[in-house]
Amino acid sequence: MDSRELLKNKEEYIGKEVTLKGWIRNHRKQKDFGFIEFSDGMAFQHIQIVYENKLKDFEEIQKLHNGCAIEVTGKVVRSEGKQDFEINADEIRLLGDCPEDYPMQPKKHSREFLREQAYLRPRTNLFQAVFRIRSVASFAIHDYFQKNGYLYVHTPLITTADCEGSDQMFKVTTLDLNNLPKGENGKVDMSKDLFGALSYITGSGQLHGETFALAFNKIYTFGPTFRTENSNTKTHANEFWMIEPEMAFCDLNELMDIEEDMLKYIVKYVLDHCGAEIDFCNAFVEEGLRERLEKLVNSSFTRVTHKEVIDILKQAKEKWEFEPSYEGDIAKEHEKYITDYFGGPVFITNWPKDIKAWYMKTNSDNKTVAAVDLQVPGAGELMGGSQREDDYDVLISRAKEMGVDTEAIDWYMNLRRFGGCVHAGFGMGFERLIMYLTGIENIRDVIPYPRTPGNCDY
Amino acid sequence: MDSRELLKNKEEYIGKEVTLKGWIRNHRKQKDFGFIEFSDGMAFQHIQIVYENKLKDFEEIQKLHNGCAIEVTGKVVRSEGKQDFEINADEIRLLGDCPEDYPMQPKKHSREFLREQAYLRPRTNLFQAVFRIRSVASFAIHDYFQKNGYLYVHTPLITTADCEGSDQMFKVTTLDLNNLPKGENGKVDMSKDLFGALSYITGSGQLHGETFALAFNKIYTFGPTFRTENSNTKTHANEFWMIEPEMAFCDLNELMDIEEDMLKYIVKYVLDHCGAEIDFCNAFVEEGLRERLEKLVNSSFTRVTHKEVIDILKQAKEKWEFEPSYEGDIAKEHEKYITDYFGGPVFITNWPKDIKAWYMKTNSDNKTVAAVDLQVPGAGELMGGSQREDDYDVLISRAKEMGVDTEAIDWYMNLRRFGGCVHAGFGMGFERLIMYLTGIENIRDVIPYPRTPGNCDY
Repeated sequence: MDSRELLKNKEEYIGKEVTLKGWIRNHRKQKDFGFIEFSDGMAFQHIQIVYENKLKDFEEIQKLHNGCAIEVTGKVVRSEGKQDFEINADEIRLLGDCPEDYPMQPKKHSREFLREQAYLRPRTNLFQAVFRIRSVASFAIHDYFQKNGYLYVHTPLITTADCEGSDQMFKVTTLDLNNLPKGENGKVDMSKDLFGALSYITGSGQLHGETFALAFNKIYTFGPTFRTENSNTKTHANEFWMIEPEMAFCDLNELMDIEEDMLKYIVKYVLDHCGAEIDFCNAFVEEGLRERLEKLVNSSFTRVTHKEVIDILKQAKEKWEFEPSYEGDIAKEHEKYITDYFGGPVFITNWPKDIKAWYMKTNSDNKTVAAVDLQVPGAGELMGGSQREDDYDVLISRAKEMGVDTEAIDWYMNLRRFGGCVHAGFGMGFERLIMYLTGIENIRDVIPYPRTPGNCDY
Repeated sequence: MDSRELLKNKEEYIGKEVTLKGWIRNHRKQKDFGFIEFSDGMAFQHIQIVYENKLKDFEEIQKLHNGCAIEVTGKVVRSEGKQDFEINADEIRLLGDCPEDYPMQPKKHSREFLREQAYLRPRTNLFQAVFRIRSVASFAIHDYFQKNGYLYVHTPLITTADCEGSDQMFKVTTLDLNNLPKGENGKVDMSKDLFGALSYITGSGQLHGETFALAFNKIYTFGPTFRTENSNTKTHANEFWMIEPEMAFCDLNELMDIEEDMLKYIVKYVLDHCGAEIDFCNAFVEEGLRERLEKLVNSSFTRVTHKEVIDILKQAKEKWEFEPSYEGDIAKEHEKYITDYFGGPVFITNWPKDIKAWYMKTNSDNKTVAAVDLQVPGAGELMGGSQREDDYDVLISRAKEMGVDTEAIDWYMNLRRFGGCVHAGFGMGFERLIMYLTGIENIRDVIPYPRTPGNCDY
């Protein structure tokens, strides 16, 4: 028996005796009775426990601290308070004590303080909501892709291949850093490492994902990724989770269809399964959150080209910090203007090729690539994708232009020779999605144990 | 339109025209017609395409190689062959060519050869079966835990905490190995690293998982884990995926209930959703596979203590290579004997504490711990778990005995002070599960891109 079951079928339990095990989240004591706000962690909602002085252990119970683990046996009764029901305790047994200096007292703690108590903050209402939404959104993603016939593929984390550039990647080694073997040239002899070569933990599963798309048609990855960026902002972490779907026989328009369909599915799933958590975030994190999410599910996403966006920005009467440019990227201020302008999510397509990655499909104008970024109100860029270059010669020449070691990833290039086809894929940063779903503005507050420059605590 | 939809609703499509995009897996040519074994990767089953010389491109079509990407339009008709239906082509269009030296010819390739062609082997029948089972089993795991109210938690991959011992962990660094900063003591100055300290990629999410179990009650992890073991066997890889559930208010018996229930759910789910793949593995990988899996779903797992197992082994008339011992581990030969003896899966409980981990609950005999390994016929140890020591003083003293730096993980220890309770968890190696589900004996053949000593190709 747990609170999830009790809340789900509460009408059936009225008048019945139940036993629950969990923790005291708040304890209000009166002379002849007391109230315990009880959570067993199985539901966001707390259960109210009422006990009276007729219990033989009444005095012992009154001494129970916030944070104690207890077992409660009692009758479920309709409540006169704001709860639907409460439990009228017949017995309350202490399972695990908690001292008075327990850091998680029932008062408002700052987010900064809670980050320092990363192992205890999951016990607070905010993080009960955030991490439950994180779990449910993860499942929604798997559910969406599996229902639609995608293969979930575990691309390797340790790799010698580099997709986004190895200067952004952590090195991995089994060597003793204080006693590195040296080769004849005085450099470290990486052949002595476990893999016999310098290896990294990956910043993307895309290249490997494409090899599976060319066999299984529609695939997705969902796993941790790593970047060494030494950037202490609210939106950067060095370890984060990413979803990277890749689809064979898929062009840029079909890619946008999939991105839109997937995002609406996830948001709707979270609204349907985390109603209480969303209401909490709506009340205490971002006013209007629920409305924003509900609106997204029923909206139609705008599709414009990069050129059209620049036209709009140039015609705007705003004073820009960064001048909009047909050859350039789009700044944060522009992103916000564009989503406001269209009043909802916007796909921006056909970007100048020089500011995008080498594996993206060059358009017939030879100036732009078939790339697409999705901008959403309030969260900026949520997904980035493209058609992949499917012409072997063009791909090789673009890769060389960008300084990619094409021989090291000849297998990737060969996908274009062995039954290649029009194909496309995108990446979605999972933490950015969770920030979008909760209204939380700091990435450190949507990751169980965030890793940022200077911080690998716990 | 794809083959998955066509196969699912084939009766509806008989007599209708469809268009499919995919690859030629085999091409048999006759004078006046031809047969193409076609796969678009969306289903394990191939689709048979028949074309006749009435097509205007007949001669061009006959030249199409194995491996080519094509688009086929034609009518779905009942087949006289072993298929239920086939497609009578009206048009076959080449989308992406494939040269005659394409390595994946329609003949039997050795597993060793296919490992070298890791990026092409997903196109073979065997790996279409294995990786589809891997994907479906992944989903079954999420489905099981989410249905039962568990929280999915992403424990960190990069960590400074060590659970299984840092000598087994890969070091992670942003420093230039050829130009390491040195401190005054001549040692590498790790404060210059991105995190300001020596960090690792983790071998287990358990310690972090427990912090979430003490807040959310029932949690699970499912992510990549890493061990530096320099061991070139069929069952070891340096990167693998692991599932680590942790449950508050759960003792050893309840832990076994969960393990048994979960395993049966996964096996049944795979049998229900991968019938064709299991049949293929049954025919070409392990005879009797299907029967073995079906038997598991309907069996009741045996529960015996380590002492009882040693009694049985000592009474056996076998000549053991390793003498069974009440203080020792159980060798492979013993595992096999025991699962044969009981004719099915066996939980072995209450192990000698000296051969088990420091965080396991010491039993009242002070000699054994409340640990449990699950042995399954054919795959050996599939899961290992335990009650976790919930007594703060005992935990600290056990950790110190085993040389654990208790101050570095004081947060883990503190879980026993702040509302601690009886709790338990287990780990299941995901690759071992896939080997069990497919009959595949080499771990390299159930991982998309396996990492083993000396091998980090692709």
